[in-house]
Amino acid sequence: MPIYNFSAGPGMLPAPVLREVQAQFLSYKESGVSIVEMSHRSKRFTELARHLEERLRRLMAIPDEYAVLWLQGGATLQFSMVPMNLKTAGRFAYLDSGVWSQKAIADARRVGTVDVIGSARGVGYSELPTWPETIQGADYLHLTLNNTIEGTRYTALPETDVPLVADVSSNILAEHIDVRRFGLLYAGAQKNIGPAGLTVVIVRRDLISERDVPSYLSYENHVDTLLNTPSTFSMYVAERVLAWIEAEGGVDEMERRNRLKSERLYRALDTSSLFRPLVTDTTSRSLTNIPFTTGNEETDEAFRLYAEARDLIELGGHRSVGGLRASLYNAMPLEGVERLVDTMHEFEQEGHHVSYKNV
Amino acid sequence: MPIYNFSAGPGMLPAPVLREVQAQFLSYKESGVSIVEMSHRSKRFTELARHLEERLRRLMAIPDEYAVLWLQGGATLQFSMVPMNLKTAGRFAYLDSGVWSQKAIADARRVGTVDVIGSARGVGYSELPTWPETIQGADYLHLTLNNTIEGTRYTALPETDVPLVADVSSNILAEHIDVRRFGLLYAGAQKNIGPAGLTVVIVRRDLISERDVPSYLSYENHVDTLLNTPSTFSMYVAERVLAWIEAEGGVDEMERRNRLKSERLYRALDTSSLFRPLVTDTTSRSLTNIPFTTGNEETDEAFRLYAEARDLIELGGHRSVGGLRASLYNAMPLEGVERLVDTMHEFEQEGHHVSYKNV
Repeated sequence: MPIYNFSAGPGMLPAPVLREVQAQFLSYKESGVSIVEMSHRSKRFTELARHLEERLRRLMAIPDEYAVLWLQGGATLQFSMVPMNLKTAGRFAYLDSGVWSQKAIADARRVGTVDVIGSARGVGYSELPTWPETIQGADYLHLTLNNTIEGTRYTALPETDVPLVADVSSNILAEHIDVRRFGLLYAGAQKNIGPAGLTVVIVRRDLISERDVPSYLSYENHVDTLLNTPSTFSMYVAERVLAWIEAEGGVDEMERRNRLKSERLYRALDTSSLFRPLVTDTTSRSLTNIPFTTGNEETDEAFRLYAEARDLIELGGHRSVGGLRASLYNAMPLEGVERLVDTMHEFEQEGHHVSYKNV
Repeated sequence: MPIYNFSAGPGMLPAPVLREVQAQFLSYKESGVSIVEMSHRSKRFTELARHLEERLRRLMAIPDEYAVLWLQGGATLQFSMVPMNLKTAGRFAYLDSGVWSQKAIADARRVGTVDVIGSARGVGYSELPTWPETIQGADYLHLTLNNTIEGTRYTALPETDVPLVADVSSNILAEHIDVRRFGLLYAGAQKNIGPAGLTVVIVRRDLISERDVPSYLSYENHVDTLLNTPSTFSMYVAERVLAWIEAEGGVDEMERRNRLKSERLYRALDTSSLFRPLVTDTTSRSLTNIPFTTGNEETDEAFRLYAEARDLIELGGHRSVGGLRASLYNAMPLEGVERLVDTMHEFEQEGHHVSYKNV
């Protein structure tokens, strides 16, 4: 019986990719050398990096006027690199849709002046913030396109001439994203791309300029070159994951599957008498991160353990919000969601929540 | 016949570790989940991270008053994080011993005033810089303890009350380093620790304080906690590499082997009529990085190809200096060096350098 891993990241990766990585681990492409021992300046690795970029460009239809950078430090480091590199007037507009937005805002405040032009704090982030009709005088407008913790996602975007910047860590390659609508997109790899330790930045070349910031922190130094040793293993696995997505039918097919999976789980949550979803506004529900609860902390924990004993793991909510959460990234098969739904029913019918509550 | 990889990094890793990683890749410790799919907040990974730190503390005798941080971005990101975090008066002293020192200096200049108190530029970095007898008025003194590109290393350190900061990327765990002599040590993992994408910082706790810098860039946010998702796979392999070092006899044994290996190669270089070492000052020769040349660019390249055809790979010098270079990290066995020495003799005796030159 397979284990279904609902972790929000690092998360499940496609099983065929993991098997291939294992098979190739001691000798990458019959080189006699492991990928982890290979110089990032070697011919083989240079080729690998090129394939990785080409695949991402094909999968997301990234035009040539955008550069693709492979960095380290996670989305967290981008929280400061974005304002450092896009600063012109020094005023930045942000939409506050949850924990990760707040962290991005806090870091931008150390670089310039932040205008939070919309916040969903008042409703506990269970829906998305609204924004003013006109947005002006900002170097960019930042939003978190999919909120990993709160389980919301934008399906409409502000109409504005200000460049849009989005954190797409938890929905990149999981659903269609129109790159041309954005000035810059960034994502940590550890959800839909590959192992942790890798961050991808997709940025319109005309937004990049020489900056008086330290070398690693300047986008310009990373354009079309490797400034220093990147996360070579993560890039290798990412290239294989992207090959898998292409072979499976691309991002459209991933989105189709993710819709099926999230609809299946939401249907169960909307009709359950024990569990309820945290995001009630159906138009802003994430396809990839679905927080839910029984409304009782002990019963939530009882279910988490009940599911874990049945090989459905990492269903705990983020430590900042508690409750339960199922992350349904590309590598999670529909069967995993069906098993989860069945297990929710069993738990409910067996009345475990009562006995667990009394433990 | 094994392949011997003389890459300066990412470099050779111990074969038994690679085999173990491969065997465990689909199911870490019988969890049914790959290490690359495992949440960095999970119990299993938390334990792994603890073991990693404990092993490093034992191997390097790191006292409790030092924190150990596992970061990303390579030594390059430390070039700016060091001055950002240790800045008090805003004056930094640097010793310039080569390419990597220069990069560190350039980044520090964006944060404060740099005094280069000694430079080996005048002698083409073939020996180490000297330093003034008294060093005062600096927040710290930075040096590159082992110069990966130029092949020099410090065996004596300045006597000063100013905290010493050292880049130890290419000699950490390869030879004894007295941690107590330093305020801060940092190293990219991809030479003697594990796969790329991981940087370790060992810093005296009293030097860390709250800083008005973005979240990722503040040491304080990384002390005794994971601020965000780290390079989980690299940390896993690093833990296994450190276990291997401990089992083999620790850093003293690594240093003993590295001395044997470097002496073997230097003996050949010092007595060769074709090859010569770039570092002539015998007291400052690196144990891990040995640059050499025939004095002729084409013959160097001919030898690189000759060796490569005999499974001795990555012998090219750094693109900034050219020539040849053998990096002899912990995972390189003595047999690899003997093969290299034999191959140098064969190349010389067969007169290949002549015919190759005329190609």
